[in-house]
Amino acid sequence: MARVVQKFGGTSVADIARIQSAAAKVKAEIDRGNQVAVVVSAMAGATNELVGHVTAISTLYDVREYDAVVAAGEQVSAGLMALALQGQGVDARSWLGWQIPIRTDDAHGKARIQGIETDELLRGMAAGQVPVVAGFQGLGPDNRITTLGRGGSDTSAVALAAAIGADRCDIFTDVEGVFTTDPRIVAKAHKLDKITYEEMLEMASLGAKVLQTRSVEMAMNHRVRLQVRSSFSDAPGTLVVDEEEIVEQEIVSGIAYNKDEAKITLVRVADRPGVAASIFGPLSDAHINVDMIVQNISEDGKATDMTFTVTKADFERACEVLKSHRAALGYQRLIGDANVVKISIIGVGMRSHPGVAQTMFTALAEKGINIQVISTSEIKVSVLISDDYAELALRALHTAYGLDAD
Amino acid sequence: MARVVQKFGGTSVADIARIQSAAAKVKAEIDRGNQVAVVVSAMAGATNELVGHVTAISTLYDVREYDAVVAAGEQVSAGLMALALQGQGVDARSWLGWQIPIRTDDAHGKARIQGIETDELLRGMAAGQVPVVAGFQGLGPDNRITTLGRGGSDTSAVALAAAIGADRCDIFTDVEGVFTTDPRIVAKAHKLDKITYEEMLEMASLGAKVLQTRSVEMAMNHRVRLQVRSSFSDAPGTLVVDEEEIVEQEIVSGIAYNKDEAKITLVRVADRPGVAASIFGPLSDAHINVDMIVQNISEDGKATDMTFTVTKADFERACEVLKSHRAALGYQRLIGDANVVKISIIGVGMRSHPGVAQTMFTALAEKGINIQVISTSEIKVSVLISDDYAELALRALHTAYGLDAD
Repeated sequence: MARVVQKFGGTSVADIARIQSAAAKVKAEIDRGNQVAVVVSAMAGATNELVGHVTAISTLYDVREYDAVVAAGEQVSAGLMALALQGQGVDARSWLGWQIPIRTDDAHGKARIQGIETDELLRGMAAGQVPVVAGFQGLGPDNRITTLGRGGSDTSAVALAAAIGADRCDIFTDVEGVFTTDPRIVAKAHKLDKITYEEMLEMASLGAKVLQTRSVEMAMNHRVRLQVRSSFSDAPGTLVVDEEEIVEQEIVSGIAYNKDEAKITLVRVADRPGVAASIFGPLSDAHINVDMIVQNISEDGKATDMTFTVTKADFERACEVLKSHRAALGYQRLIGDANVVKISIIGVGMRSHPGVAQTMFTALAEKGINIQVISTSEIKVSVLISDDYAELALRALHTAYGLDAD
Repeated sequence: MARVVQKFGGTSVADIARIQSAAAKVKAEIDRGNQVAVVVSAMAGATNELVGHVTAISTLYDVREYDAVVAAGEQVSAGLMALALQGQGVDARSWLGWQIPIRTDDAHGKARIQGIETDELLRGMAAGQVPVVAGFQGLGPDNRITTLGRGGSDTSAVALAAAIGADRCDIFTDVEGVFTTDPRIVAKAHKLDKITYEEMLEMASLGAKVLQTRSVEMAMNHRVRLQVRSSFSDAPGTLVVDEEEIVEQEIVSGIAYNKDEAKITLVRVADRPGVAASIFGPLSDAHINVDMIVQNISEDGKATDMTFTVTKADFERACEVLKSHRAALGYQRLIGDANVVKISIIGVGMRSHPGVAQTMFTALAEKGINIQVISTSEIKVSVLISDDYAELALRALHTAYGLDAD
């Protein structure tokens, strides 16, 4: 007997027929002799509709009321999933965040799970009952509904899996698993059988929207074996596991891209201690996140160029903030460029294989693609290039690292 | 300072614009120096959509899951109303049934309110905060969401008004108030300024769908001053009050009709003790409610005719049940007729004025309308007639009792 958490995303419970088909997957797992707990997202489109209602009233809304409104989506799908399971002869009941309870902090709209009371759930499961847990929601210390941020149902599922000591947490979604890169762009991309938590974390935070980043962090911290798989087939998906579980580690496992960045260069800012703080302080005050940062070596010891990226949504505002601080910063010129893309190669194998970045630079150079900014971490190398070359670069790198499917 | 409960029905919160306009009514009441608690129904159409999802999965659904699903509608509207009030500068917060809690019995789908904890609500109101309570829902002894049956938000509002000792409970709906009869049929129908609880109760149970019957019972028992009024105007509506509050009582206050009845006559059933029980026992076993019952005097002391009405939905099934029991009942013939309408005159003045029914019989006779069945209570007289004459009868009676507007 294994204990399994099955999480169904919005497209997997988009209508009654899909809920029935998801319920059949739960029943199949039960029939294999396993104990199952289910976590559901809201029916596809439901959350957007509810958020639309809230923002139609006010853009500066009370986030506690936002939470009460949008959490209704998962309440509905949880009840419907329980009914579908009952209809297939499976004992099931829905559980809302406040009923379990799933306790969170008071950060409404982006709350963090602090604990899940599992006694009743486990007692039900032992007696053959499937708990159908409404994802995305919890109970704050103020006895009000909290939500975990978009994609938060992934985190609900992983937290539940950790709390009940599940052997596996299956994330059912509308793709077959995690791919080496976006198969819509690179036809030769292939599904990975396994990927490490660290790699998945980089993939998620770099824009591969398969899993919420926080859910991967949590899975890594609690060593929850995640499986990303399709709700529209029975094929195995991608297992997200510990590094030790992967015997033959590819040097580069995947290539991610993010088109949501814009580049800003401040030409000839004073090269003195504290200049970075004086640039990024005002941006931080304006709640603008900065991603890649490059400071060139100063030629004359007096002034240097500072380049960094922000999200496209923050781009205009970031430029305004910097212009309004021009006197204090003393730069000569501000150059903005929104036509950029960040491409990243990811792989835990990089740690033990020098020269991985060199392969990237060579492959891009051979295609005549200019690298504007480079940033690296232990298991990834990211470059910023003109977005005209995004597809070309992805395909070239996919081939260069031997990831092309046969 | 008065303490007021304002309840907004589904059409009054059908979209964001209407929620804003309902919020403006709350603000106006606050600006008059009153304390206000709000109760909301689900946005028009939302409950039907949710019920549709449930019944698409199963017609024999687990009513606890039904409750969890459909209660989501009021959760959404309560949050949105709180946001709309905040947007108009009114301090407000939403309250779900389980948060207050509004405790009910465990009769999921048609639960009865057992108690409302008001300390926190009253503390908030005293501090100038408007509690926006999700109608229709409560918390059962099993710690699961219960609902109060269709139209249950009226009952939520009255129960809340009773619990917080409100001076008035305004029910905002899509009509201007309670009319002497259906203005779509009788052009001369007029809005009543006041009506007694007893009369309103008869009106509601006889098919005038302005208020849920149970909410009127509860208002009567707790002496809650109800006002039915339009959310689309500022005109006063109809006050539902104690008999003593109405100085000049009309003999007949209103005329109701119900087209949802069908007539069954069993010709020549044995005239012996226990025959009624033997007829209505099997119907009761089949969960078929019987309304009007007439047993004619037996001419020969051996057999009699028994006539009664059931809802049109139960008509076919009732006939089948009776046919399957024909041997035991020993009737000669079963005559069914679904083309009937029940017309009722209602007025507490009847108690002290004899001859009220006679006016009805005369008025109908003058129009050549045959009365098939008569039943009476202390404050109403109901007749069953062919539904061909429904409109004619309503208009004739409206005139006969002096109810026509000038």
